[in-house]
Amino acid sequence: MYVRNAWYAALWSQELPAGQMIARTLLDEPVVFLRDDAGRAAALLDRCPHRFVPLSLGARVPGDRIRCVYHGLEFGLDGACAHNPHGNGRIPPAARTRAYPVAERHGMVWIWMGEAAATPETIPDYGFLEGGPDFLLSARDRIVIRAGAELIVENLLDLSHASFLHDGILGSAATVAAQTEVAQHERGLTVRRWMPNVPSPRLFDTFSEHPGRRVDMWFDMNWQAPCALVNDVGATDPGGDRSRGYRILGAHILTPETATTTHYHFAAALRVPPGHDAAQDARIGRTLSEIRRYAFEQQDAPVIEAQQRELLRAGPDAPRPALFEIDAGPVRYRRMMDEMLARETRA
Amino acid sequence: MYVRNAWYAALWSQELPAGQMIARTLLDEPVVFLRDDAGRAAALLDRCPHRFVPLSLGARVPGDRIRCVYHGLEFGLDGACAHNPHGNGRIPPAARTRAYPVAERHGMVWIWMGEAAATPETIPDYGFLEGGPDFLLSARDRIVIRAGAELIVENLLDLSHASFLHDGILGSAATVAAQTEVAQHERGLTVRRWMPNVPSPRLFDTFSEHPGRRVDMWFDMNWQAPCALVNDVGATDPGGDRSRGYRILGAHILTPETATTTHYHFAAALRVPPGHDAAQDARIGRTLSEIRRYAFEQQDAPVIEAQQRELLRAGPDAPRPALFEIDAGPVRYRRMMDEMLARETRA
Amino acid sequence: MYVRNAWYAALWSQELPAGQMIARTLLDEPVVFLRDDAGRAAALLDRCPHRFVPLSLGARVPGDRIRCVYHGLEFGLDGACAHNPHGNGRIPPAARTRAYPVAERHGMVWIWMGEAAATPETIPDYGFLEGGPDFLLSARDRIVIRAGAELIVENLLDLSHASFLHDGILGSAATVAAQTEVAQHERGLTVRRWMPNVPSPRLFDTFSEHPGRRVDMWFDMNWQAPCALVNDVGATDPGGDRSRGYRILGAHILTPETATTTHYHFAAALRVPPGHDAAQDARIGRTLSEIRRYAFEQQDAPVIEAQQRELLRAGPDAPRPALFEIDAGPVRYRRMMDEMLARETRA
Ligand code: FES
Ligand code: FES
Ligand code: FES
Repeated sequence: MYVRNAWYAALWSQELPAGQMIARTLLDEPVVFLRDDAGRAAALLDRCPHRFVPLSLGARVPGDRIRCVYHGLEFGLDGACAHNPHGNGRIPPAARTRAYPVAERHGMVWIWMGEAAATPETIPDYGFLEGGPDFLLSARDRIVIRAGAELIVENLLDLSHASFLHDGILGSAATVAAQTEVAQHERGLTVRRWMPNVPSPRLFDTFSEHPGRRVDMWFDMNWQAPCALVNDVGATDPGGDRSRGYRILGAHILTPETATTTHYHFAAALRVPPGHDAAQDARIGRTLSEIRRYAFEQQDAPVIEAQQRELLRAGPDAPRPALFEIDAGPVRYRRMMDEMLARETRA
Repeated sequence: MYVRNAWYAALWSQELPAGQMIARTLLDEPVVFLRDDAGRAAALLDRCPHRFVPLSLGARVPGDRIRCVYHGLEFGLDGACAHNPHGNGRIPPAARTRAYPVAERHGMVWIWMGEAAATPETIPDYGFLEGGPDFLLSARDRIVIRAGAELIVENLLDLSHASFLHDGILGSAATVAAQTEVAQHERGLTVRRWMPNVPSPRLFDTFSEHPGRRVDMWFDMNWQAPCALVNDVGATDPGGDRSRGYRILGAHILTPETATTTHYHFAAALRVPPGHDAAQDARIGRTLSEIRRYAFEQQDAPVIEAQQRELLRAGPDAPRPALFEIDAGPVRYRRMMDEMLARETRA
Repeated sequence: MYVRNAWYAALWSQELPAGQMIARTLLDEPVVFLRDDAGRAAALLDRCPHRFVPLSLGARVPGDRIRCVYHGLEFGLDGACAHNPHGNGRIPPAARTRAYPVAERHGMVWIWMGEAAATPETIPDYGFLEGGPDFLLSARDRIVIRAGAELIVENLLDLSHASFLHDGILGSAATVAAQTEVAQHERGLTVRRWMPNVPSPRLFDTFSEHPGRRVDMWFDMNWQAPCALVNDVGATDPGGDRSRGYRILGAHILTPETATTTHYHFAAALRVPPGHDAAQDARIGRTLSEIRRYAFEQQDAPVIEAQQRELLRAGPDAPRPALFEIDAGPVRYRRMMDEMLARETRA
């Protein structure tokens, strides 16, 4: 059961070169992505309506068409069979695969897999990934986590885990006591944490000329339903100006592959003090990419995957999890998702 | 659900040397094959009736018996326990495994796994695999395809796929337009294709002194229910005599291993113009074996296996496939199989 | 369905060093084992009640506590959450994982996973593994067999298999005819076999100065429900005194991991004639360990695992196994287990 009437991240734009077909499983459905001759991204259900062979095994042929590898039927990007090379050449009306609405924005290809009409105004805004004068960019990266997307959203909305699971990198004993605020907005939630006068975490120290100093630090996480998150983490000198100093805007964009596996796309922009040179910038960008990948792949993923395995083993009769104050964000998230699912089911 | 009252290919004769036991899963049942002291093939359900250990783990012992590895009970080739070495030596009447009717013909061991009496007159005839004065033989080969047998029969009965999936080897753009005729006969179907004046496909060109010439070509496929196919492909000079020139008789013999995996046995006889020497013949036989294995293992199998995976993923609620004129053979095949299954279920 | 109100072997004591946490699946439940500061073994359900992450991924922290890796909640060895480092620090009453009764005896850690009160007096007695003046000890070993525990108990209670599966090592053609007696006692069964004047099996010959001689031999197997077995095998000169001569006391202690996989713990004590030196003793101990591991891992396991696979394939509709005189022990075992399960279900 997925919320379907929503935009999901499908591919970083760079993953889809002209002339290629990329197959990906999203929401348990096989999808093939390609670009038309004008470079526009398109997405079809990756299943030939003739004999169910994946279209992605075939060839991209002239006239914005895919030719199926098995019997050579050709399909347009609207999903309809456009050419039958055999015998009388007739094409039955059922010879049509599904075409999905697609949008490309700020370096990400988005797909709409629901039955309702797509709403372009709800495409999540990751404009900060375009960069800017004071911002360095990390790599645009992706891993597959063998856990349901909901466990990863809960991970991200529960800022408390940073102090333990990412001890040293993102949090520390000094950040544990910080109060957390949860606010609901039209399309999601924002969870906010303010940590005045704490030791600078390694994430910032790595880039700083003054490692080991104390900072005022914030850590905000914004979630837009169902799967798009942005975190805004920053540190200033105690009492300093939040519009200056280190700040990281992080994209965490999840797409269910199946009920228990998730594509996790991530990238970040780092605001740096002026005066860096290009070599330094490249090094900082690389370090930022590496630290983030390390935190997600080596710290979060093993724990969340173990959690998923344990949930599957415990089964539907398992006792309900014990809830703490730190679960305020995840609890609201679950409630909003349940409401969205219920609305879709009724509709 | 398998048609069970039928002969299925179990092993090439050469796969069953005297003194050995060969275990194979057929129609989801474990079967052990061996030869009696006179060399006759036999087949038993590969499951000791005592504690369900595979008999094939045991030993072939004198007196045409198998001794179970676990507690040493001995079984005759009729499946009955013939010796209990322990204590009072008594043997309960239930101590009997199933023995299957077996027939060996033209180098293939056939098995009958149904409840009805076996009918020797319906053993498929692959006499052409014995060779003859003008015929060279390929190797007798086998691969396991991870797809149901019905998908492979449909593949073979749909001649149109040759032009695309085997483009260059068996078909080409020039053969696409050819008309196909489907005829039903007592035990199956014949699908026929006649392609006058087309470029010679590589399959024949490989053996020919005149590569690149044009030929009249035929491609007939004969299916005997449930799983035995013969194709007859040939080429003559345009307007030439079909009783001369290149001709390949190909055996395609399928046996379900499980609902989604199939043993695919294949071999062929090639009619060659007179005057070849033995060294040439050996080379041609090898080439023929290699081309066929390549076409089935590298071209057909990946596509059919992808089709099978997609059918499993789509599940029983999937839309029905769109049918084209090229599906005339497969559609008749499905109907005949459904009728056979219904007859067996009623019986 | 497991008998749960019983002691199960969890770990050899040596497998649980101070300061470490060991995760093991027992009866389909994840369990984490550790020692308190006084060295006493403890066992908790290996599942944080907060978000179901395995506690064994966390850290052993001072004060006999485990700290969960994910959000740093701390749990005492009674399973209760003892510290919440976040925000207001409140702990909901549901924040408690299950603690299991544990006992350590003669080098084995035992666990009680049932709902009834644990009964210390029923801990199986493996005192002979402490050794003694005339006894040499094998290694304490463990393998995982991919078969249900009941198939292994049946293997052990059916002494007849020794003559075939362990032909040469433990039995031989000469031991086949021996009569077997089965006796029920309060907590289980004893199966006894007496084999006068037979060739000495390799198991003893290996240690003997007189290989190849004839011996009187006994082979008794004692089973205590549900999973604790001891065998007592010995050989004397024909007509000799059973309180002297070679004798092996073997521990076979099974614990279901899942319904189809089992932890098999084994160890043995060998009574040797006086006069061995230490180097000889070490060699004999090693040989004893190796022979036993070989017999279980290379001879029993492949057969029992094939049996399990075949039982799973045959499914619930399979015909019932044919029973022979040699099945007297296993048949009684099944009946006693069924009664125990029925009693637990009623309770
Ligand atoms: S399966 Fe695609 S053309 Fe036949
Ligand atoms: S299982 Fe075959 S003899 Fe016992
Ligand atoms: S899952 Fe253990 S503390 Fe949260």
